[in-house]
Amino acid sequence: MDIGMVGLGKMGGNMRTRLQRAGHTVVGFDRNPEVSDVGSLEELVAALPSPKVVWVMVPSGDATRATVRELGELLGEGDLVVDGGNSRWTDDQANAEMLAGKGVGFVDCGVSGGVWGLDNGYALMFGGSADDVAKVQPALDALKPEGDFGAVHAGKVGAGHFSKMVHNGIEYAVMQAYAEGWELLEKAEVTDNVTEVFRSWREGTVIRSWLLDLLVAALDETPALEGIRGYADDSGEGRWTVEAGIENAVATPAITAALYARFVSRQDDSPAMKAVAAMRNQFGGHAIQTSPPQGGDASGDS
Amino acid sequence: MDIGMVGLGKMGGNMRTRLQRAGHTVVGFDRNPEVSDVGSLEELVAALPSPKVVWVMVPSGDATRATVRELGELLGEGDLVVDGGNSRWTDDQANAEMLAGKGVGFVDCGVSGGVWGLDNGYALMFGGSADDVAKVQPALDALKPEGDFGAVHAGKVGAGHFSKMVHNGIEYAVMQAYAEGWELLEKAEVTDNVTEVFRSWREGTVIRSWLLDLLVAALDETPALEGIRGYADDSGEGRWTVEAGIENAVATPAITAALYARFVSRQDDSPAMKAVAAMRNQFGGHAIQTSPPQGGDASGDS
Amino acid sequence: MDIGMVGLGKMGGNMRTRLQRAGHTVVGFDRNPEVSDVGSLEELVAALPSPKVVWVMVPSGDATRATVRELGELLGEGDLVVDGGNSRWTDDQANAEMLAGKGVGFVDCGVSGGVWGLDNGYALMFGGSADDVAKVQPALDALKPEGDFGAVHAGKVGAGHFSKMVHNGIEYAVMQAYAEGWELLEKAEVTDNVTEVFRSWREGTVIRSWLLDLLVAALDETPALEGIRGYADDSGEGRWTVEAGIENAVATPAITAALYARFVSRQDDSPAMKAVAAMRNQFGGHAIQTSPPQGGDASGDS
Amino acid sequence: MDIGMVGLGKMGGNMRTRLQRAGHTVVGFDRNPEVSDVGSLEELVAALPSPKVVWVMVPSGDATRATVRELGELLGEGDLVVDGGNSRWTDDQANAEMLAGKGVGFVDCGVSGGVWGLDNGYALMFGGSADDVAKVQPALDALKPEGDFGAVHAGKVGAGHFSKMVHNGIEYAVMQAYAEGWELLEKAEVTDNVTEVFRSWREGTVIRSWLLDLLVAALDETPALEGIRGYADDSGEGRWTVEAGIENAVATPAITAALYARFVSRQDDSPAMKAVAAMRNQFGGHAIQTSPPQGGDASGDS
Repeated sequence: MDIGMVGLGKMGGNMRTRLQRAGHTVVGFDRNPEVSDVGSLEELVAALPSPKVVWVMVPSGDATRATVRELGELLGEGDLVVDGGNSRWTDDQANAEMLAGKGVGFVDCGVSGGVWGLDNGYALMFGGSADDVAKVQPALDALKPEGDFGAVHAGKVGAGHFSKMVHNGIEYAVMQAYAEGWELLEKAEVTDNVTEVFRSWREGTVIRSWLLDLLVAALDETPALEGIRGYADDSGEGRWTVEAGIENAVATPAITAALYARFVSRQDDSPAMKAVAAMRNQFGGHAIQTSPPQGGDASGDS
Repeated sequence: MDIGMVGLGKMGGNMRTRLQRAGHTVVGFDRNPEVSDVGSLEELVAALPSPKVVWVMVPSGDATRATVRELGELLGEGDLVVDGGNSRWTDDQANAEMLAGKGVGFVDCGVSGGVWGLDNGYALMFGGSADDVAKVQPALDALKPEGDFGAVHAGKVGAGHFSKMVHNGIEYAVMQAYAEGWELLEKAEVTDNVTEVFRSWREGTVIRSWLLDLLVAALDETPALEGIRGYADDSGEGRWTVEAGIENAVATPAITAALYARFVSRQDDSPAMKAVAAMRNQFGGHAIQTSPPQGGDASGDS
Repeated sequence: MDIGMVGLGKMGGNMRTRLQRAGHTVVGFDRNPEVSDVGSLEELVAALPSPKVVWVMVPSGDATRATVRELGELLGEGDLVVDGGNSRWTDDQANAEMLAGKGVGFVDCGVSGGVWGLDNGYALMFGGSADDVAKVQPALDALKPEGDFGAVHAGKVGAGHFSKMVHNGIEYAVMQAYAEGWELLEKAEVTDNVTEVFRSWREGTVIRSWLLDLLVAALDETPALEGIRGYADDSGEGRWTVEAGIENAVATPAITAALYARFVSRQDDSPAMKAVAAMRNQFGGHAIQTSPPQGGDASGDS
Repeated sequence: MDIGMVGLGKMGGNMRTRLQRAGHTVVGFDRNPEVSDVGSLEELVAALPSPKVVWVMVPSGDATRATVRELGELLGEGDLVVDGGNSRWTDDQANAEMLAGKGVGFVDCGVSGGVWGLDNGYALMFGGSADDVAKVQPALDALKPEGDFGAVHAGKVGAGHFSKMVHNGIEYAVMQAYAEGWELLEKAEVTDNVTEVFRSWREGTVIRSWLLDLLVAALDETPALEGIRGYADDSGEGRWTVEAGIENAVATPAITAALYARFVSRQDDSPAMKAVAAMRNQFGGHAIQTSPPQGGDASGDS
């Protein structure tokens, strides 16, 4: 099929390649002219046969909303927009309604797989009407992994991004689980070689997984993770998962713990712990330390 | 090699079979005469050539400690005891010292794989001296999965069970991660079919894993897990992992969240929440409910 | 001063009384004619001298929004609306702007104190312009506790409800803290009389507080909290506090733990723990229980 | 009464003073000769009339165990040792049995109140037989706060320290609650003056407490806690409370969150978050940072 791809970064660029390998014709647009096939969204739309299908793969939030809005002005009856970015699922309904007013269909598609997707295929979770999904089905078939799994029509508009959001929430907690185990093994110094323990877990254990494989790969590249900073960003899905849990009165303590660990990892100093230190000093005369940090040798008792 | 196997339950029985398939000679003893090869530990020891190697695969705690003690009286210079149960790693040093007094070696070996180990192999994490490990190496080679992974000599005595303990702690949190995501997808009712979403995650996603495969298998057997009670026991390793974290000042919030969720799952009613309800009633006049539970429609505000 | 009070329930009714005791003239309106001074909002507004000040004390959410909207149609230049309910602070700006279009001022006021406020005074956290606050200052002075504390002009519109929201978030975690300690003392059975331990803490300890006093009062009324169900509602502020933390990348693990404990307390059975039980059964052959709950004697190991 | 006091530091020294103010005769011993009344434990014991009562107020752990052991050799039939330190309650039974072999009684007494205890009195939670407690009752009466509360005979030997342990566990979580609220108010910048909001909460609110008073005092001394490092030690009771919870299958999520926040506050960099960063880099090509920390502007998405 012919498909337009807006956004040719780490994800979109590789997806273009995988689609082309499968024999599809991709017209790509990116603000970076070096990777772009056309000079503008207008040119991209003009280059596609009808019904025109445009896959949006730009940063979630303002950039995606602006791109979808602009496509709404360029596309027409029977065309389709696919939002493949990490948009918040609550954006999807508004996008779908805006486009529906012009006869343009909408599919939201969560995409997982990272830099490995080019060769392994991308896991796809998509939402929208059966008719709209059918228009992009050949591309979905090309992008997904071979085998029986890796793609799901999760439900109506929004269900794709909602599924991807929960996927990422789970991902946070699974990474946190391995991370906690790794820190404990490193700190306890009971085992001779923590990397070899993790490596052994890759087969036969209950916790074998792709993330475990990746952690072992990272430990091979950077023994004991020396020089890597314990700093982790978050890009939204973890927060939204916790918020969706709260909205539905569903407790997500492990996912939340993972999210909060990331928040704290980005602080040079914890304001909350300043308050704890200040209270301890008030009631017990416990010494408080003044910044900058001076090592780990302070003592005291409560 | 010749090896004695004490405890022929779900784990030990299958391990005997896997060892036999690999051509080893196993003398098994179990309190249940229907599965036992010999009538007593004495007979088991007598039936083995020297150096005698006895693998203990009985419930951790008192049963294991008693069996090891008894073996200490039956075995002699150059023999070996392997504790393959889920013993607390802090027990290992005492067992090793007791046996060393009689010239008997000791290897602690954490075993993972559950009912799947018979065919897939068991992941093994073992601790002990190189000489002691060498005596049981042929059995370890037969029990482990094929391929490059699945077995590690983790360090000195105790390192095997310590590694297995951390493995199980991680397992708690990984299961909790999937469980939270499943509850959220079920409760939110944004997706059409939660099982199909989970099934799709088996390939191409960041969170693909063996535990995910098992959860999908369970959902296929019992759609929506209808009729299964939300009740989870814990067998010690999760508790010990959290305690080891505390001892080493390593925060394990996701593992701890998983452990606490199990504690709460076993309560008919939460005493702590009785106290919260009572305080809310005192300051705000919020209605308190009396047992037995009467459904989910109570209202109030704080 | 003259003031209108809309909503004469547990909070509003007592606040009317406290205002009257201080010599103020209160015109109260409630849907319940037995406690209402007037028959309608129109009559309430008509009965007030200009500038008219109307305090809204109705359930947060739709009821408050509707009341404020209706008052916007009845009031005029120089009048003032005070929202004293537990509204989400993000509602305040919209209410203030809507009213400002008609020359009506707006003050948001978080009110704490529950059923004890009538005699002890209510803690007040309010937001709005200095001019608007001045119009209601005599009522604020009458409602607040005697002494130096208990009232704060927290900032611009929204700052009052934001402060109250954080107050309630803290309240969740402080209650949870006592509740956890109570459950542990009860369960451990190391002390002879848990109530007496808690009672002793009311003086001289680091954890003495009003909530502790209330818990002791509850324990005196209902020894061991027998018959009280471990069930706790939440009315929004706890959720909003956690969400505000997430929005600001501030970890609130203790407050979140308290919120989640309430969520779980309202479930007859935990869907997440069904999933954990199902996974354990898949890998280890651990028995799963079928509903209904059958007591606490199940065993198993992971 | 006559009483020996071993350990005249911040706590023991003030307690001696409070006892003397009440008319009791205190013989104090400290390794620091400047504050000590006698030159050795032997002299202290010799200076007391029979039955001799000796209050031990030295650091918990080895120092306390050694002191109690030494007193066991110096004291005799009918004498009494009181352990007023923050000993782990599991030590008490062993100490009591050792002393009982020589006819010496034992009372464990948790003491709360910090530097304020001298003037306000100390909260006391004690365990032991009625006869043993009676021997030290006059001192307990002098040390406790005036009024109806502040002292409890919690049960048999160990019950005092167990109660104090739970008290401190609760204290951890209550401090964490205020600390989280403070960080959120500071970070959100919705309110004009966070200190004034906290100050207002001292009366009329649900969360008024002595710890809140102390936090306001700290904020007055050090506006916005500028220059205080977010670093908090822990002295054992928090850990033991969580461990006691685990042993009793009692979930303590808020107390645990507070404990873990202290652990993390003492790390220059989080090993667990190194592992998370490394995994994110593997699957998504997310940039990882190398130490030393370089500020808070990194970006990325998962």
